[in-house]
Order: sequence, then C-alpha cells, then structure tokens
Amino acid sequence: MEGALAYSRAHREEALEDLRALLRQPSVAAQNLGMQACAEQVAAMLEAVGARVELVPLEGGFPVVFGEIDAGAPRTLLFYNHYDVQPPEPLEEWEVDPFAAEIRDGRLIARGVADNKGNLMTRIKAVEAWLQGEGRLPVNVKFVIEGEEEIGSVHLHQFMERYADRLAADGVVWESGGKDARGRPAISAGCKGILYVELVARAANQDLHSSLAAVVPNPAWRLVQALSTLKDVTTDRVLIEGFYDAVRGPTPAERRLLEQFPLEEDEMLASWGLNEFIGGLRGVALQEKLLYAPTCTICGIVSGYTGPGTKTVLPREARVKLDFRLVPDQRADDILAKLRAHLDRHGFGDLEIVVLGPEDPAQTDPDHPLVGVIRDTAREVYGVEPVVRPRTAGTGPMFLFHRIGLTATVDGVGIGHHGSLVHAPNENVFVDDYYRGIEHVIRVLDRFARV
Amino acid sequence: MEGALAYSRAHREEALEDLRALLRQPSVAAQNLGMQACAEQVAAMLEAVGARVELVPLEGGFPVVFGEIDAGAPRTLLFYNHYDVQPPEPLEEWEVDPFAAEIRDGRLIARGVADNKGNLMTRIKAVEAWLQGEGRLPVNVKFVIEGEEEIGSVHLHQFMERYADRLAADGVVWESGGKDARGRPAISAGCKGILYVELVARAANQDLHSSLAAVVPNPAWRLVQALSTLKDVTTDRVLIEGFYDAVRGPTPAERRLLEQFPLEEDEMLASWGLNEFIGGLRGVALQEKLLYAPTCTICGIVSGYTGPGTKTVLPREARVKLDFRLVPDQRADDILAKLRAHLDRHGFGDLEIVVLGPEDPAQTDPDHPLVGVIRDTAREVYGVEPVVRPRTAGTGPMFLFHRIGLTATVDGVGIGHHGSLVHAPNENVFVDDYYRGIEHVIRVLDRFARV
Repeated sequence: MEGALAYSRAHREEALEDLRALLRQPSVAAQNLGMQACAEQVAAMLEAVGARVELVPLEGGFPVVFGEIDAGAPRTLLFYNHYDVQPPEPLEEWEVDPFAAEIRDGRLIARGVADNKGNLMTRIKAVEAWLQGEGRLPVNVKFVIEGEEEIGSVHLHQFMERYADRLAADGVVWESGGKDARGRPAISAGCKGILYVELVARAANQDLHSSLAAVVPNPAWRLVQALSTLKDVTTDRVLIEGFYDAVRGPTPAERRLLEQFPLEEDEMLASWGLNEFIGGLRGVALQEKLLYAPTCTICGIVSGYTGPGTKTVLPREARVKLDFRLVPDQRADDILAKLRAHLDRHGFGDLEIVVLGPEDPAQTDPDHPLVGVIRDTAREVYGVEPVVRPRTAGTGPMFLFHRIGLTATVDGVGIGHHGSLVHAPNENVFVDDYYRGIEHVIRVLDRFARV
Repeated sequence: MEGALAYSRAHREEALEDLRALLRQPSVAAQNLGMQACAEQVAAMLEAVGARVELVPLEGGFPVVFGEIDAGAPRTLLFYNHYDVQPPEPLEEWEVDPFAAEIRDGRLIARGVADNKGNLMTRIKAVEAWLQGEGRLPVNVKFVIEGEEEIGSVHLHQFMERYADRLAADGVVWESGGKDARGRPAISAGCKGILYVELVARAANQDLHSSLAAVVPNPAWRLVQALSTLKDVTTDRVLIEGFYDAVRGPTPAERRLLEQFPLEEDEMLASWGLNEFIGGLRGVALQEKLLYAPTCTICGIVSGYTGPGTKTVLPREARVKLDFRLVPDQRADDILAKLRAHLDRHGFGDLEIVVLGPEDPAQTDPDHPLVGVIRDTAREVYGVEPVVRPRTAGTGPMFLFHRIGLTATVDGVGIGHHGSLVHAPNENVFVDDYYRGIEHVIRVLDRFARV
C-alpha cells in the first residue's frame, strides 16, 4: 500500500485538476443540463485508470456508468456514486460561479463538489494510485455511477435488474460521507425508505367567492380533515391502520451503537432555535425515534390565496405533499395501499393520491466487516475516533442493492464537512480533505482485502 | 317627476359622456393609482349639479367625498357609493383598454363601470334631472362616496364617527345592484359581517431536511391539527365555544322572503360543476344556510414546498387565511376573542392570530318602506318582478351606518347584470341599463318622498 500512498501524494495536483475538470461540466438532472457529456467524461476517466466501462442507457432516464476492474482477487468491492448534481439556483447567492470550481481559503467551491463528484473522484484516484504505485489492486472493483440520484433514482431499477448478475460483490461503499459538527467522520450502515405522495382534494370547477362557503364544499377543509385523521397530535403516532406492523426496533448490535454515539443534542437545538425535541425526548430514546420511527411529514401544503393581505376566495382545489419515511421492514407499496384504504375507510375516497417517489428502507448489519474497515481506516486518516450509527434518518436507493443480494452497503467514505452546504449555494469541501479522502479509499481497498 | 324623466331622456348623450370621463380616470385603491384626482373629479361633478361638497381627508387613507343638497323636504335619502375600483390585472385578458371606456355591441366596457362608477353616476344624473327638469328635489339628498371599498373600507369609520351628526337620513341606498341570472332586479336588506384572520404556526428558525421530522416539530401539522378543532366535518358546524351564541334566525318577515324567492339552485350547481350543495340541502333550508349560517372558511393555506415534483423539506412556518362570515348579532371582536380562547384551550396558544379585516353584519327590516320603494320602482323601470332577499351572503361596511343609527340600508338600485364580470377582466354594463338606472333613481326619489 505504501506505493499507492506515495503515488497519490506525488500526484495531488493532477488529482485536483481532474476533479475541477469534472466540476466544470454541469450535470443537473432536474434541468437535463449536460448529462450525457458528464456521463461520457466519467466513463473516460474510469477507462483512463484501467477499467472496463459501459455507458448503460436507461429508458426515459440518464445513463449509468458501469465500470469493472478484475484484479483476480478473492474479494470484490463495489462503489455506488452519482454524477448528477442539484440545480445551482439561487445563483445570486453564490460567491463564485457554481461551475467554475474555484478555490478560496483552502476550499474548493462548486456545485456537486461534496455531493458527490469529490467522493467519486477519491475512488477513481485511489484505484489509479494502487495500479500505478503498486501495479495491482488488492480487491476487484466495480463502479455503479448513476445520473439520477438527485431526482430520486427513478430509473436505476432498470439497470439493477438487467445487470444483477454482474454486480456480485462482498460489499458496497456508498456515495456520501464526511465529518460531523464535532469533526468526527460519520459512518452509517443503512437508511430509511420513503413514500412521497401528493394528496389532491377538489370541489367546484372554479374558485368561487367565499360568501358561498355556507353551501359549497371547500376542498381545503376536506384536506385538513383528512390529514387530521392521519396523525395523533399528542403521541406523534401515525394513525393509518397497520402502519407500524412491519416496523423492527434496533437489534442488540444496533442498540449498542445508539448508546455509544449520542446525538449532539444541544448543538442541534441551538442551531435550529428550538427548546426541545418532540415529546421532550433526549438520549437513546431521541436517537431511536430519529432513526427507528417511521414518519408522516407535511412537506408542503397549498390552497387558495396565499399572497399578502386578504382575498375572500373559496378554493377549487387543495394539495398537500406528504413524505413518509419508512424503516425496515416497511415497504413503500404496502404503505401506499394502507394509506389509500385509510382514506377510503374515513370517507375520503374522493381524494386523489399522486405517487411522486417510492423507495424502500435498507439496513446492513453494523457488525459486517466493511463497517469496521471504514471505521478503522477513517481513524488512521483523520486521527479522530469516528461515529458509527446503525443508519441515517435520510433515504437513498440502497434498497435496490439489497434487493439483488448486496446486503452490505455502508456509507461514510467521503470528504464533506459540517459546513459543506450540500444542496445549497457555495457547496464546498476543503482541498486537504480531498487528498485525505483519496488516502482513505486507498486504505479501505487495502484493509478490505484482508478481513 | 315627468319633467325629471323628460330631462333625463333628452340628455342621455351627456350622461353617457360624463360616465365615460369618470371611467377614464383610474382610481385603483390597492395600487394608490389616481385616487386624489378621481375624488376631485367626483366632487366637481357633485358641485356641478348643485351639491355642497366636502373632500374629507382620512388619516392613512383616501378621502371621502361628502355631498349634501337640502331641498327643505321632510325626508332625506343618503346614497352610499365608492369611487375606487379593483385593479385591472390581468391586463392581457381585456378585449379593450380597461380605462378607455369603449362601447362594444351595446355594452360599456371598463374597470369599475358595474362596481361602482356606473351606479354612482345614476345617482348624480337623477339628482341633476330633478333639479333641471323640475326645479326641485322631492327629498333632501346626501352622498357618502368613499375611496376604499375595494380594500375593505379600512378608514371609513373615521369619517362616520366625525360626521355622524350630519348624516341623519330616513334611508340609505346602498352601492350595488343589478339583474340576476334570470334577468330579475335583485334587492337585499342586509349583509353578513366578516372576520378575516391569518393563523401562523412556527417551529424551527429555518426549513430543515424532512428526515428530521421524527424529532423536530412541524408547524404545518400543528396548523392542520388546530384547524381540525375548528369545524365538524360531518355537521359543517363551527366548534369554537360560543360561536353561535348571538346568531339570530330569520324573522317571520325575513322567512317569508326566503319562501317567496328560492335560489336558482340547478343553475348554480351546473355552472360550478357540482352534484349537490353541502349536506344535500335544497329550497328554503339551503337559502337559510347560505344567508343565516355563519361560516369559517379556509381562503388560503400555505407551508413548505408547493412547486412541481418533490422536495423533502420540514417547513419552518405554516399560514392559513380564515374568513368567518358573521350574521346578526355576532360581532367580529367577540368572535376574535372566542377564537383566541378556543385555540388556547385546545393547546394552540403558540399560534399567532393576525387580524386582516373585521366588519360586523348589518340587517335592515325588510318591511322598511325603502325596500318597497326600490322594489316597486324597479318593477316599473325593468318590467320584471324583482327578487327581494333579506340579505346577501356577502359583506360590506353597512354596519358603520347602522352603528350611528342609520338602520335602513337597502341594496338593489344598480345597473349590473349576470355577466357584468365584476372584479374580473371586461367588466361591463349595457348602455341601455345605464339609462334605465338613472330613471330608477329618479323614481326612487319621487316615491320615497311619498311613503
């Protein structure tokens, strides 16, 4: 491994310039901006380090870049990443051009640098360092680099089903990672699922004068009443029949992690201007609710007049966006059926449900060797004891890997930091963290060959 | 009176040109456009026909044009009108310039022509016709012409309190009026009040990622839960304690009117694309609910992300605009206090209430002679049996007149029709209706002197 590390340290300038070149290629999936060009650029970079690469087209979507390097090793590591980025808007809040990849005070500032082009490049550069510095890779490597992560990985399942046979691996390193508010590398072994729907209530065929409200149905009231049947305000429990049937609490191994790594509760409350969390929860109970309780969240609601002052209008339509965060073993399609049945049973059969995004949860055994590999190597690189959590409260398409038998998906090899401003203007990473990130991947490849 | 009618018929061209001149002067209160100029133009027109006129400034508002003509008669009639108009937007939907006062196919099309500059001019021209054609007025006449009706008459109370002594009259002719969908002149003797508020729920000091919803309070949920305590979905009753305490049902005279003039139910349902009214109501029960039941209406609600597709956001704030239509003897300030107490009692003391518009209801005895005068003269002018309703479901500042003892306020001397597009692009009246409207006022002045 020393040869790989030495090569990496001797070629930092090139690694940085290659990352900046990738950042200068816009790839905004939501705006269909630069997608094919970026996919081809990533494919070319992978080929340049020695991978066999395919650009796999998806029907109705952006292509997946699939790469393989067969090292003839007994073990195989798969890297999941994405080449698409969030839209850069609002542009006026950027201190530099979001696609110029400028460096200010030791930070590389660009859309996608933390999420997730920087991390993607640490993988490519680590593989290059092994091959150039050691002449070999200690494990076989596969790359699945999609172009739709920021829009819900809507077509990735096509690829996963078609390429299932060729994706066999002993572990999957997930795309994100970085340091928490206390500077500790954060590692997690799972994620929640999501069911994102819009409920639509309708009444008259036009907005009417609100003086008619005594006799004409108001869809905003219907929506409010339907919503109020979904959740108990006192217990914060979802009231959909059977909603909790498949929920699994933490295993003993998962619970040990909850106890070992408490949340930074006071920092969280202070930064959000809150006095307490829901129900006054603290400690393990708080973390267990955050990570193990499914949710039903109003992400947006709109009806009628919402401008300044008054308008006496009886709206024709009301809409709410609801996001259900799901935990193992809940499934998005099952929860959707239960939501429909609940609304019908409570007299809201007329409410339309528009499904905007279903993803299942995924959980890796936190005792899997890959977790330990990432933790131990992170400690070596950053000199700080990492935080390991059984899962995050967020959502990703890990379940697509679990579904085809790749049940060891671990997140936490990444170069973000607490102020990386992911999805926001002035997204950034420290240039030094990029170099450390490459070393982290070099060490992960080394250690995973030996566990 | 024949001299007045003859004068009016001989001077139709001038009456039309004077109205067009008034329409060409924009007077959009909401946009502070042309207000002082329009007030001065109205004052000059009143002076030209022989009235003693004052332009009464209101602190923070637009002036009231107050006019008087003392005819030495035993009775006095007061005309309430307004010179302000709604904003003309959306401009692209007008077939003519909204301030050009063009005539197309017998219709005069202009912002404010139906609401309410046309009606205002029928009063001025009728007074002129009496004075020029008969040399006298049969009743004393007073004019209260405000400039803020379209923005809620927010400062009119200043004038009413300061001028209370000088407003003594035997009846008040309200501003609007016109023919219903079946071509019948519509007359009403009262209106509902209104309490328009915004409720605001807040939680964190910023929008957060919705994955935090398991532990961070969601103001949209709080608002929904608070709203659901306000109204019973099954009975459509408002659940605020004491809300109905002051509600008076129809008097025998009012009930007779409900029975005599049913609503055009089938036309209403068809034009709005509805199968039925709330609760399947029809007939007198339907009209009684429309006119005698107070309401609680969601006019607008907004929180979080409301654009296309998904955004997984936990909103920091949620707002709802609520309009309570009030009936005698409810009072806006009392209902506001009861709403606050209700929210506090149900655990929503943290919700802010922003008061955007309070107006009390007003009811005139439908047996008051002025009702009969307007009905009988309308029948003569239009050759159709008028519809008399005890009140409208809408709201106006009539209560300010009732509060100073002017309890005979009757609406229904106006030149609108079912397609007048009040508050909408291409607002219009038939030119012939304008001429008839002048004759209607001439006859009202004549008849009111003799009842």
